[in-house]
Amino acid sequence: MSSKIPVSVLAATGSVGQRFISLLDNHPWFEVVEITASDKSVGKPYEEVCHWLLSESMPEYVKKMELLPTEAASLKNSKIAFSALPAEIAVEVEPTIAKKGIYVSSNASSYRKNPLVPILVPEVNPDHMMILEDQQKSYGWSGGIFTNPNCTTVGFVVPLATIDRKFGVKKAFAFSMQAVSGAGYPGVASMDILDNVVPYIGGEEEKLEYEPTKIMGCFKDHKIENHPIVISAHTNRVPVIDAHTICLSFSTNEKTDVDSIINALESYEFPDLCKDLPSIPSKGIVYHREPNRPQPRLDRSTYGGMATHVGRVRPDHILDFRMVSVSHNTIRGAAGGSIVNGECLAAWKFGKR
Amino acid sequence: MSSKIPVSVLAATGSVGQRFISLLDNHPWFEVVEITASDKSVGKPYEEVCHWLLSESMPEYVKKMELLPTEAASLKNSKIAFSALPAEIAVEVEPTIAKKGIYVSSNASSYRKNPLVPILVPEVNPDHMMILEDQQKSYGWSGGIFTNPNCTTVGFVVPLATIDRKFGVKKAFAFSMQAVSGAGYPGVASMDILDNVVPYIGGEEEKLEYEPTKIMGCFKDHKIENHPIVISAHTNRVPVIDAHTICLSFSTNEKTDVDSIINALESYEFPDLCKDLPSIPSKGIVYHREPNRPQPRLDRSTYGGMATHVGRVRPDHILDFRMVSVSHNTIRGAAGGSIVNGECLAAWKFGKR
Amino acid sequence: MSSKIPVSVLAATGSVGQRFISLLDNHPWFEVVEITASDKSVGKPYEEVCHWLLSESMPEYVKKMELLPTEAASLKNSKIAFSALPAEIAVEVEPTIAKKGIYVSSNASSYRKNPLVPILVPEVNPDHMMILEDQQKSYGWSGGIFTNPNCTTVGFVVPLATIDRKFGVKKAFAFSMQAVSGAGYPGVASMDILDNVVPYIGGEEEKLEYEPTKIMGCFKDHKIENHPIVISAHTNRVPVIDAHTICLSFSTNEKTDVDSIINALESYEFPDLCKDLPSIPSKGIVYHREPNRPQPRLDRSTYGGMATHVGRVRPDHILDFRMVSVSHNTIRGAAGGSIVNGECLAAWKFGKR
Amino acid sequence: MSSKIPVSVLAATGSVGQRFISLLDNHPWFEVVEITASDKSVGKPYEEVCHWLLSESMPEYVKKMELLPTEAASLKNSKIAFSALPAEIAVEVEPTIAKKGIYVSSNASSYRKNPLVPILVPEVNPDHMMILEDQQKSYGWSGGIFTNPNCTTVGFVVPLATIDRKFGVKKAFAFSMQAVSGAGYPGVASMDILDNVVPYIGGEEEKLEYEPTKIMGCFKDHKIENHPIVISAHTNRVPVIDAHTICLSFSTNEKTDVDSIINALESYEFPDLCKDLPSIPSKGIVYHREPNRPQPRLDRSTYGGMATHVGRVRPDHILDFRMVSVSHNTIRGAAGGSIVNGECLAAWKFGKR
Repeated sequence: MSSKIPVSVLAATGSVGQRFISLLDNHPWFEVVEITASDKSVGKPYEEVCHWLLSESMPEYVKKMELLPTEAASLKNSKIAFSALPAEIAVEVEPTIAKKGIYVSSNASSYRKNPLVPILVPEVNPDHMMILEDQQKSYGWSGGIFTNPNCTTVGFVVPLATIDRKFGVKKAFAFSMQAVSGAGYPGVASMDILDNVVPYIGGEEEKLEYEPTKIMGCFKDHKIENHPIVISAHTNRVPVIDAHTICLSFSTNEKTDVDSIINALESYEFPDLCKDLPSIPSKGIVYHREPNRPQPRLDRSTYGGMATHVGRVRPDHILDFRMVSVSHNTIRGAAGGSIVNGECLAAWKFGKR
Repeated sequence: MSSKIPVSVLAATGSVGQRFISLLDNHPWFEVVEITASDKSVGKPYEEVCHWLLSESMPEYVKKMELLPTEAASLKNSKIAFSALPAEIAVEVEPTIAKKGIYVSSNASSYRKNPLVPILVPEVNPDHMMILEDQQKSYGWSGGIFTNPNCTTVGFVVPLATIDRKFGVKKAFAFSMQAVSGAGYPGVASMDILDNVVPYIGGEEEKLEYEPTKIMGCFKDHKIENHPIVISAHTNRVPVIDAHTICLSFSTNEKTDVDSIINALESYEFPDLCKDLPSIPSKGIVYHREPNRPQPRLDRSTYGGMATHVGRVRPDHILDFRMVSVSHNTIRGAAGGSIVNGECLAAWKFGKR
Repeated sequence: MSSKIPVSVLAATGSVGQRFISLLDNHPWFEVVEITASDKSVGKPYEEVCHWLLSESMPEYVKKMELLPTEAASLKNSKIAFSALPAEIAVEVEPTIAKKGIYVSSNASSYRKNPLVPILVPEVNPDHMMILEDQQKSYGWSGGIFTNPNCTTVGFVVPLATIDRKFGVKKAFAFSMQAVSGAGYPGVASMDILDNVVPYIGGEEEKLEYEPTKIMGCFKDHKIENHPIVISAHTNRVPVIDAHTICLSFSTNEKTDVDSIINALESYEFPDLCKDLPSIPSKGIVYHREPNRPQPRLDRSTYGGMATHVGRVRPDHILDFRMVSVSHNTIRGAAGGSIVNGECLAAWKFGKR
Repeated sequence: MSSKIPVSVLAATGSVGQRFISLLDNHPWFEVVEITASDKSVGKPYEEVCHWLLSESMPEYVKKMELLPTEAASLKNSKIAFSALPAEIAVEVEPTIAKKGIYVSSNASSYRKNPLVPILVPEVNPDHMMILEDQQKSYGWSGGIFTNPNCTTVGFVVPLATIDRKFGVKKAFAFSMQAVSGAGYPGVASMDILDNVVPYIGGEEEKLEYEPTKIMGCFKDHKIENHPIVISAHTNRVPVIDAHTICLSFSTNEKTDVDSIINALESYEFPDLCKDLPSIPSKGIVYHREPNRPQPRLDRSTYGGMATHVGRVRPDHILDFRMVSVSHNTIRGAAGGSIVNGECLAAWKFGKR
């Protein structure tokens, strides 16, 4: 135990918080030593106040842990804080934690537009992590903040960036069919979604259109230079528990063909910076050749819920190509993504790997 | 009764056939006098062999009617035949019926690509009906065949054609989320669609890309000249019982703005040729200003399931505009559409209205 | 207009309130003149604050009506108040309205156990209404309170009471599969019910075990004498939008057989006191002879959502018989039931019919 | 490899067959050496003809295996055959395989009523296996047939038998809410079950009423003496993918109380005959103290899908107690159950453990 890195989970009782708790059970590098919650739960043991929603059982290690206030002062031993905080609280609390010397691996959207805060997707841009040194200099922090993208962004940015690297991507349509778990708990009312589709998710389309430009951007001279890709998004909620499905149409800079696109996806390899991290799946992109795949229910849970599934690459009549991607929104798209980001940092800063 | 037009329903026991039977109950112009089915049901009363699937009760008039063989010889009194035949049977049987002097209002896809067979959408192109005279001359028929579009095409071609008429539409993306009833019965297995999305419907995308070019085309000099619009489609099956939802992105020839597009949709009026038909709803296009509408469960059944619901008109970053449409696939998109088409014809050929 | 009875709807913006508003549109006897809501909506027009959930459109008459505070003082013209109030507010407000001379047709559970307040089910016990005179004497009211049963109780008490009248019913098991709309809006979270069953609904089993003893009881000598039937209930929530399904096993006093039970159900007739009320369906009990019926999606909406559907009467191995019933929980089981109750009263007190 | 027992899977491409294939991947005792399918697939590699339905990936070992005809002659090396055959084929084929000296662990219902064929539930009656010796003598077989119960029976017989052992159970009601996967693939049409409940499953109630009398029976003097318990069942299909939920009411011979019942369930221990079998979960019965558990989506997959989940033990007003149980129908209730049965046999006959 002693050799593990002590970490904390902020907002540990919510739906993303629970995924952190579950995925960090028996983690080879990290040990959860502090957990926080909102005022009404502070001082109580986790199992007493947490309305557990996952199909995996609540891990033993957390049951008796006492919930602490969500503030920097609570974190006496953590080196990394995994944040499942809502954006309006994250914006206040996360900087105070970073200032104290702790690295915050955040799932909140609060700082994604800050040019000094990287939106990390290890499959795509682990080098953006280096901007943390500039962040520390600018803000006088000894810790730092790095974030996840939105859970739908991550579901298509991995294949898009892979294709971009080979052929350049100029424009892309992203049309999503998103799981209800993306809205947290209680989130979407059953009366709104049984036998229904809701063709609107507040603020979501803007995130899908902005975040890839930063993630796919180039880090040099202490700056992330945004990618010039133009994205147009349509976001929809559908009656699916977990995993977002995204239909994509896109144009490439270089002229190419369907087979070459598929080949680029099938031969995807993780960047060196995130090879051998504990939570990296054996495949980053799984390409499905069956005409009716990927599908959320069938594909979300393979590879530990951490792979991006792609299929149906075919020509497009307006842009150049069409394809479909599926990704587990609460694992790859939230807690699992933040943990991989934390592992990236730990490999770099704490000598792990 | 004597003044009503005698009509028949071909393949009356299937899911589309049942909608015909239900919608023709107490129809002011039409009286069902003959119904057909496949061999194993021939000679039996309707109520004995029909596995009724609708939530409305089976109409009294049809319960004791005897099912006839699906062939021209069965239709001794019909002037119009509403066809719910599967494409592979329609291709053989419908011409023999047309030859006999009966007008076939077909829901089958078999003849949609025939340049002499109109794909009728009364909201858009009732004048295409006139090509029936050329059809009669060419084939030596005294009746004729006219068809419905695919149930997803009709869900977006009405607003698209309306916008086209004002501003011209050059290109359009159509991303669909389609109800399971579109696949007939038993159709989609529950294990394939509960908690799931299937991002593939065989042959569907081609239909959505072709049919609007014909429907939005111009009829002149005895020809339908196809519209030059280019469409790219992504079709998906979702766990919804009835009504297809379509997200659209499109570009216009004439530069315009969101308000003008909404205004064009809200001020839509039926063409003279289909005004006052019995099954025409009080509104052809219902524009919803709430940000999260239209929705299939909430909007499909209003206006008798015959209106097209549109919402969320907003700018697009790649083409010019985005919007969402919803339409009832088994009413407006199948039996209801064929009945309106039959009414169009009856107004023209049989002096109704 | 002048000849209609002026009525009000309390808590008009919630899910049951909306059903009242919708079902009272063009009601032949009643005219809605006053509507109330909670403080934050008071003073605003209905359409501005109501998050409309029904698939029928919001009626025109209510759109501009101003929402009043939920208190007796607001009701200046109503003779009957339809109450969709939550129990904890109903308990305070309803007596003050009754005192003012208004009859409250309540959907709340607050007074169902009060021996002077009838739980009215017109198909079963319209005579219990007469206890209102004792209620007035005891409390010094010039109006009164009468209630609906719980939306699941009403789904099985109609067939059970019908069988009881002929053969006597001693014991019954009621095992429910209840729609999500029974929990109001937002009510059941989609994450709790998609691909799931929740075998628990707080407080529900007690209601199903108590209410039928009162409804099936005998009114004489100014008292409702409870029926000695013993009921054991299992209540479950399932992913269905509307309509509760109840499996029943029961024993009879008099020895009888399946055909006689079915015959009793099929020959059900409304009591004289509720014949010809506007909202009474053409059939009170619809018996289905198909082995796999009734089903909520297929049967809930026929007969205006006001009939009780029964099927599968067969012998039981422990008690005497088994059967299945289905009833629309938000129409027959809530607003529609209260409206029929109001019609019963109007026929008696206001000379209607 | 050499020390593993060679086994086969009959009807390996269907939904239960796929579960066998998946659960036998890397099995510590068994190695799949032969797989069979229906005529049209014979001679082809598994991966080519199998429409894989599970969310786990298809195991590597089976992809290239050739499908053999479903007949005894195909099984040249198997010692145990796991049968996912439909009942009408099992009735013909299984005896020819048993005759050849192979033990058939069957999931088919064909021989469950044969007094010499045990319905094995290792948690309850592993000793019934001994009747195989009488079966061999009677039929002149060197192998034998033993079966699984119906997938719903197994979901409640484990707790019921556990309570029976302590207090005796006289009568029981079993009300089921069954997953669609219980009907195989394609099985239940989505149009029949979305937003719906089907209160009927052909032939199911009889199985639930008969099978426990045999499983809970006593094996002595070369006979299984059926248990005198009387069961009454109501079976329903609900929109759940996997896991059946059963509400139970039951009476005991010995007077006892809720706490003692719960204690009996919580202290359940596997019989010696099935201790340490590879597929036996760490807990046979998981008792949930939360009032709203067990639930199919949350509880089905814990303990490898092999445990029976119980909750809500409380008094009953007609019989003595009520409770709820949940069990994974395609794992514990089908392939997983047959595999444990095969392990039981292997421990006895092939010196494993």
